[in-house]
Amino acid sequence: MLVLRLFGTAGIRKKYPEELNPILAYKLGLAVSTIKEWNKAYIVYDTRTTSHLFTYSFASGLMAGGVNCYFIGLAPTPIAGYAAKKYRGLGVSVTASHNPPEYNGYKFYDNEGYEFTRILEKEIEEKINKQLSPVDWSRVGTSYWSESIIDEYISDLVNYVNRPNKKWEPIIVIDLANGAAYKVSPEVMRKLGAKPLTINADPNGYFPIRAPEPRKDVLEKYLDLYASVNPPVILAHDGDADRLAVLDPVKGFIRQDRIIAFYAYLLLSQRRGRVIVSIDTGRVIDDIVEKMGGKIERYVLGKTHERLKQVGASNTVLAAEPWKLIDPSWGPWVDGVLQVALITKTVIEHGKPFSKILDEIGIPDYPWDRRSYKISPVEKRDKIYNEFIEELKHLLGEPINVITIDGYRFEYSDYSWILARKSGTEPKIRLYMEAPTNERLREMIELSEKKLVEIVKKNNAIIIEKTIG
Amino acid sequence: MLVLRLFGTAGIRKKYPEELNPILAYKLGLAVSTIKEWNKAYIVYDTRTTSHLFTYSFASGLMAGGVNCYFIGLAPTPIAGYAAKKYRGLGVSVTASHNPPEYNGYKFYDNEGYEFTRILEKEIEEKINKQLSPVDWSRVGTSYWSESIIDEYISDLVNYVNRPNKKWEPIIVIDLANGAAYKVSPEVMRKLGAKPLTINADPNGYFPIRAPEPRKDVLEKYLDLYASVNPPVILAHDGDADRLAVLDPVKGFIRQDRIIAFYAYLLLSQRRGRVIVSIDTGRVIDDIVEKMGGKIERYVLGKTHERLKQVGASNTVLAAEPWKLIDPSWGPWVDGVLQVALITKTVIEHGKPFSKILDEIGIPDYPWDRRSYKISPVEKRDKIYNEFIEELKHLLGEPINVITIDGYRFEYSDYSWILARKSGTEPKIRLYMEAPTNERLREMIELSEKKLVEIVKKNNAIIIEKTIG
Amino acid sequence: MLVLRLFGTAGIRKKYPEELNPILAYKLGLAVSTIKEWNKAYIVYDTRTTSHLFTYSFASGLMAGGVNCYFIGLAPTPIAGYAAKKYRGLGVSVTASHNPPEYNGYKFYDNEGYEFTRILEKEIEEKINKQLSPVDWSRVGTSYWSESIIDEYISDLVNYVNRPNKKWEPIIVIDLANGAAYKVSPEVMRKLGAKPLTINADPNGYFPIRAPEPRKDVLEKYLDLYASVNPPVILAHDGDADRLAVLDPVKGFIRQDRIIAFYAYLLLSQRRGRVIVSIDTGRVIDDIVEKMGGKIERYVLGKTHERLKQVGASNTVLAAEPWKLIDPSWGPWVDGVLQVALITKTVIEHGKPFSKILDEIGIPDYPWDRRSYKISPVEKRDKIYNEFIEELKHLLGEPINVITIDGYRFEYSDYSWILARKSGTEPKIRLYMEAPTNERLREMIELSEKKLVEIVKKNNAIIIEKTIG
Amino acid sequence: MLVLRLFGTAGIRKKYPEELNPILAYKLGLAVSTIKEWNKAYIVYDTRTTSHLFTYSFASGLMAGGVNCYFIGLAPTPIAGYAAKKYRGLGVSVTASHNPPEYNGYKFYDNEGYEFTRILEKEIEEKINKQLSPVDWSRVGTSYWSESIIDEYISDLVNYVNRPNKKWEPIIVIDLANGAAYKVSPEVMRKLGAKPLTINADPNGYFPIRAPEPRKDVLEKYLDLYASVNPPVILAHDGDADRLAVLDPVKGFIRQDRIIAFYAYLLLSQRRGRVIVSIDTGRVIDDIVEKMGGKIERYVLGKTHERLKQVGASNTVLAAEPWKLIDPSWGPWVDGVLQVALITKTVIEHGKPFSKILDEIGIPDYPWDRRSYKISPVEKRDKIYNEFIEELKHLLGEPINVITIDGYRFEYSDYSWILARKSGTEPKIRLYMEAPTNERLREMIELSEKKLVEIVKKNNAIIIEKTIG
Repeated sequence: MLVLRLFGTAGIRKKYPEELNPILAYKLGLAVSTIKEWNKAYIVYDTRTTSHLFTYSFASGLMAGGVNCYFIGLAPTPIAGYAAKKYRGLGVSVTASHNPPEYNGYKFYDNEGYEFTRILEKEIEEKINKQLSPVDWSRVGTSYWSESIIDEYISDLVNYVNRPNKKWEPIIVIDLANGAAYKVSPEVMRKLGAKPLTINADPNGYFPIRAPEPRKDVLEKYLDLYASVNPPVILAHDGDADRLAVLDPVKGFIRQDRIIAFYAYLLLSQRRGRVIVSIDTGRVIDDIVEKMGGKIERYVLGKTHERLKQVGASNTVLAAEPWKLIDPSWGPWVDGVLQVALITKTVIEHGKPFSKILDEIGIPDYPWDRRSYKISPVEKRDKIYNEFIEELKHLLGEPINVITIDGYRFEYSDYSWILARKSGTEPKIRLYMEAPTNERLREMIELSEKKLVEIVKKNNAIIIEKTIG
Repeated sequence: MLVLRLFGTAGIRKKYPEELNPILAYKLGLAVSTIKEWNKAYIVYDTRTTSHLFTYSFASGLMAGGVNCYFIGLAPTPIAGYAAKKYRGLGVSVTASHNPPEYNGYKFYDNEGYEFTRILEKEIEEKINKQLSPVDWSRVGTSYWSESIIDEYISDLVNYVNRPNKKWEPIIVIDLANGAAYKVSPEVMRKLGAKPLTINADPNGYFPIRAPEPRKDVLEKYLDLYASVNPPVILAHDGDADRLAVLDPVKGFIRQDRIIAFYAYLLLSQRRGRVIVSIDTGRVIDDIVEKMGGKIERYVLGKTHERLKQVGASNTVLAAEPWKLIDPSWGPWVDGVLQVALITKTVIEHGKPFSKILDEIGIPDYPWDRRSYKISPVEKRDKIYNEFIEELKHLLGEPINVITIDGYRFEYSDYSWILARKSGTEPKIRLYMEAPTNERLREMIELSEKKLVEIVKKNNAIIIEKTIG
Repeated sequence: MLVLRLFGTAGIRKKYPEELNPILAYKLGLAVSTIKEWNKAYIVYDTRTTSHLFTYSFASGLMAGGVNCYFIGLAPTPIAGYAAKKYRGLGVSVTASHNPPEYNGYKFYDNEGYEFTRILEKEIEEKINKQLSPVDWSRVGTSYWSESIIDEYISDLVNYVNRPNKKWEPIIVIDLANGAAYKVSPEVMRKLGAKPLTINADPNGYFPIRAPEPRKDVLEKYLDLYASVNPPVILAHDGDADRLAVLDPVKGFIRQDRIIAFYAYLLLSQRRGRVIVSIDTGRVIDDIVEKMGGKIERYVLGKTHERLKQVGASNTVLAAEPWKLIDPSWGPWVDGVLQVALITKTVIEHGKPFSKILDEIGIPDYPWDRRSYKISPVEKRDKIYNEFIEELKHLLGEPINVITIDGYRFEYSDYSWILARKSGTEPKIRLYMEAPTNERLREMIELSEKKLVEIVKKNNAIIIEKTIG
Repeated sequence: MLVLRLFGTAGIRKKYPEELNPILAYKLGLAVSTIKEWNKAYIVYDTRTTSHLFTYSFASGLMAGGVNCYFIGLAPTPIAGYAAKKYRGLGVSVTASHNPPEYNGYKFYDNEGYEFTRILEKEIEEKINKQLSPVDWSRVGTSYWSESIIDEYISDLVNYVNRPNKKWEPIIVIDLANGAAYKVSPEVMRKLGAKPLTINADPNGYFPIRAPEPRKDVLEKYLDLYASVNPPVILAHDGDADRLAVLDPVKGFIRQDRIIAFYAYLLLSQRRGRVIVSIDTGRVIDDIVEKMGGKIERYVLGKTHERLKQVGASNTVLAAEPWKLIDPSWGPWVDGVLQVALITKTVIEHGKPFSKILDEIGIPDYPWDRRSYKISPVEKRDKIYNEFIEELKHLLGEPINVITIDGYRFEYSDYSWILARKSGTEPKIRLYMEAPTNERLREMIELSEKKLVEIVKKNNAIIIEKTIG
């Protein structure tokens, strides 16, 4: 039986109404209700125009499956994970994360606060295609409101991170992406001692100014605006605030690998243990983890939470991917508001710009590149990829380490590395590279691109699109 | 194209989940959203276990059609009509009225407070079968809460009816049917000066004690209970409180025709004009209307509100059907809470039991009968009915008046009458009779039943079920 | 300094507006805010007309003291204790319990769920008289809604008590006193398998039918009503549902000592340990506790929760006073809804009337008497009481045990006993007596009353009022 | 009897807790409840930390006075006026407008939507000092939530202003002052076709970045930030959004007189009639009103709404003061969100920067000056002022018109004018001047200041502070 793939890298994100409509949302809710003996679900939603539509239609499915729904209201995705764990229920965030405004979707958390694993996702996808029966009228669920959980989250988070002793009250700029953290993140910043200057804080599902994805190009467009008050750091959420981007008023976007390295530094200062990062992250994290006496492990992109669940939160210090941070001592969900708290606290404690702090800690900025090639015809992509991997094994030198958990990552003795992956959603081959010097990086780019072009041609295919960055 | 008939005599009432499920509810909402340029909908629901399920799934349809939903919450159906008129929007009550707990459904009110006409209902039924397109993501509706409308309704109603001058504070028993008026009707009674003793006032969609239909047999089962405090009158709602039944502690259930006659008396005391009643109502109403100088008109059962809309609320004093009252000066919706207010006020003002008041006003209780015959095979019902009508034209005497708007009603010079109708939902022939004496009534019953049995036999059919009362 | 005594036997209950007004409520809130480092308060209120008034004015005091208020809404008092313990905050119930409608007041719970001790109460009384300073504007508290806690309470309670296996679905009558449990107790009954027939379930702070105090005389007035459906048991709450009274359809009010004995039987069947009861309870409890291998201890009336706190919940099986039950395994607050659950379950499991179950368990009904004498002039009461106690020491025989923790309780070898106490709120002397036979009881009454009259006369005082029962 | 003056120019604004505390707020609520036969009050609050504190304590006073409170929630002050008129009740905004964060206060609207007159304010001030009695327990008010009114306001306002036909979607910058319009004003802008780029839109009662008063100096500090995206206009609210300031990205703050002249132009284009402006406004408004065929009238500062009430809304086109606009066709309350709507629509329709539109309409920018002199000792201020006025009568030429309704305003034939007023709250003399040329203005300043200094000296007093602008 052909099963429709609903879930992507992080939850479901689909276009309204072509790909996701209230009927599918209802079926999805009904399917999720059967996954486990949930008594109750804690539901947040973001600012999208369709948020009530998809909250209530999905909740109808849960109720039809006998689950009581507790609506927390407009709130960041991390609060769904937080509530699921603290109150031992299902956590649901109605959000399309950083997708354009015509999208919406869902992220789910089990009653320990873990995002659903791929196994659970598959179970749901299969169930949706079947004719699921709602429960008898006498066991149908109902709903309640529970906004106080937002206050409990803020209070618990501020207690967890701890207010810095310093009295410096810097203006820190934060761009809320017209999203769900519009009130929560500034309040956390204020409680930790900073003065938040907010941009795009009005909840607005039209995202009139910037795309909710906190990419370098999206954010640097407004660098003049952000920098005009010369803040020690600039923060920017995506729409549902599971993610955070960080900018320097002068240098602009700070590469995500360096941010992860910073968290590794911070958390390993407190306790030793494992650091799980996604396969596409760079050498700078290894540098810091090694220096701090931790142990680094790379895992499938978008699935570091699954690895965390496998190995356990107790001996893992950190699980991270670009833009995404899990601090297992706080909870096993990706939490962008926690990032806001950690950076705000650090800046106040050090009393200086964040990029200066990164330099002082010794978090280097290695040359890197990231590009993708769209192949046509579609069906030739896999063959080309396989041939390319075969060539890559020796193309850039002899690797001292190869990781194959998600694509092929070849690591060389000079600390340079290349990762080749197939995209899961498009007919693309993606390359990620890093090197100690610009020269080496240029060499890696030229050799690999030349080889790929060669193989494409040999296969009578063409590259119809090339994206850099 | 075959169009599914969704609507019955009063709105939609269907069994969950076989006949009505959240997907159909969503489609229904979407269809309703297209009927008119609604900006907003005012939504109440009753106590059924599926009330949140069917509120939210239906609201998803409205929102998908671009309508903003204002949730009033758990409240009697009349408040949907009231809000629709007062705030000029769509009114929606999520209720299956007095049906068993496994049912749910909808009643709709246009922005003047009129229940939807059959024409609108047909339009909706047709639209549901088509593939309706939801509006663009940028125009999708959202939702708000608006519980204060319940308070406004109570306040406006008490002002409308006016607190009696008398100081008597009788205990009046009211059975709330575990339904939506659990708080509203007792509060209205109290504000008018009575002490409500409530039975089954806990909101409870399982209806553990009595069926929500306020029938004679359902209610008289608890007459001992109701009568134990010897109240001047006993009131009983259906589940959504558009209806009211009235009992005397000694004589039990008071026939609905007499209650309608009482309202006619009350309202015609204040102003003259037309009285619209359904085809199945009795002579006692004519008596009173004539005495009070009004003008009576009989109309299709379940559709008196349509007639009211046609002729206009300004020169109509009353529109009523058994259990259902519309007072056009208050608003064009059926309102059981208004009935509670009128009877409470009257009892306090007169300072005596309600049945005594009826006697003093001079509202007689004529002998009557009501019975139905289920015919098999189904397809023969219509032919039998037609032949029976043909015979009936002269069977019980020469009628001085024949009304054919809904079945055939033959009226005789001694004020006796018979109405023969086909049921709209079952293969039944229904007979309603009234006479000035028990003898004449017995004669009418015997002759008509004998004739019907004869015709059934002649057609090689059988009566598989006969119901009296 | 003279300190106004605000607190009575159970929390604060004062007349509006003479004794308790919003200004005092505000000061009270401010005082309570300083008692402990509360982060947050969970607040329920009952159905009184002044409930919003006293919720919001009191909450203003808490907020002025920096505490965030989580409003649960209209809910039974036990939910304040439950929320306080489960979510580790202050618990507040805005209620005057079973006092007349013009009263209102407060019950407080610490973050373990214990009602405030007398020491805390005194601290509050002293603080109110001082000029307490509100916190700085920047640390003032705010408020949130959190109705879902009601659902969690119901769900946790039903899980705790456990649905009986039996399939019997008896109609059980419950009189809700127009109070806060209007929805909660019937829902618990239904979830355990009974069909609740509710009387006075509409939330109505005017208490139009019966006083909210669940006394014998108040309830037996409606015994005909309650008994008309011949239920296996009749239950009746006070206004805030921390209390429960139990009636038999034939025999009427069941003495509270027997109900406590029943709970002792039930809970000692599950585990051994201490049973704490108030000083005014009778021999039947000793009988059962001894039979079941428990250990009984008598304590000050209205303060058994304090004794429980001293000795610890872990080795105490039960703490109870007439109408009031604490099951420490469930939580240290007095819980009338828990009583509803335990009795409902027992009746269903045994499949027979509750009074029959009491008989089968072997819970006897000893002859008893309770009376009080109001002395004038007021200031002579204490001297008369002291002289009376001196005489009582040998008057009715030689006691084998004397308990002096709250008045004087003399216990005799034939298991008869007498308790003499001074009222805390009125110039009264109260006597409680129990005996194995009616003869012995009559003797005790005559001898003690004669002696008291004698002493009163000797002191040139008079008895201006005598109350029996 | 000395009566505490609570009300200032616009409602009550006091420091917490020294000047305004919950006890006073309660008394105030009780006093307001007695002013008129209010059935109900519609209550909004702004983002201050004490907003819940002062909403609930004030509402306690209203409820104690028998008024039912409908909480709309966090919303701009204009919505209090709007709800009061539309739903015929009392309107209340809990706000200290643009005062610093440690302040809070109230604005009141009668059931036609007019802000309370000084006469009503005095009545309240007197009543607070008396011992007001709360109503009997049985008539105490209660409360409800009614957030949907926010949506109705937005919808009605957008319909009133009307979406422009043009398709230009400019980015317009709006600074929300961390205040109550955080969501409403951007939504109105979006619905009219603009893209709002919001600054300080997070609701935050600490006002971390800018003072809530939208003064030139406060706002121009952030001109770089606002101007960085080169918007056609920059808008800035105060904390409760009854006010609006307007900036040009290049020229900065646009003088309020020109903004008022623009509204006069706009509204007089639609219909003729009276224009009421405060005494301190300039010649540019006369220019436009004359050109457009209207009739201008100057009135007491802070009291133009009283004048509007006297003359009636039907033949008045506009009532305005610096930062404050009343459009009587929309409603008689000061409405900053309406200003947002009118300017947004105009900019889109003209497709060019707002300051260019002002130029094209022909709204000149005359030289002006505004200064104040603080006199010591305090008690000499009045004498000095009187002597100064005497001199001023001929000092700057022979006036062709003198207005004495609020201070003395002398108007000259060259269209220059001077206004001298005593401050109502401080021992200050205030001068406002305008002239057709810079030379004339300089002359007016020199002559008047010289004369004032002379009189001060003659009276043995000194000027302890001089403020310009």
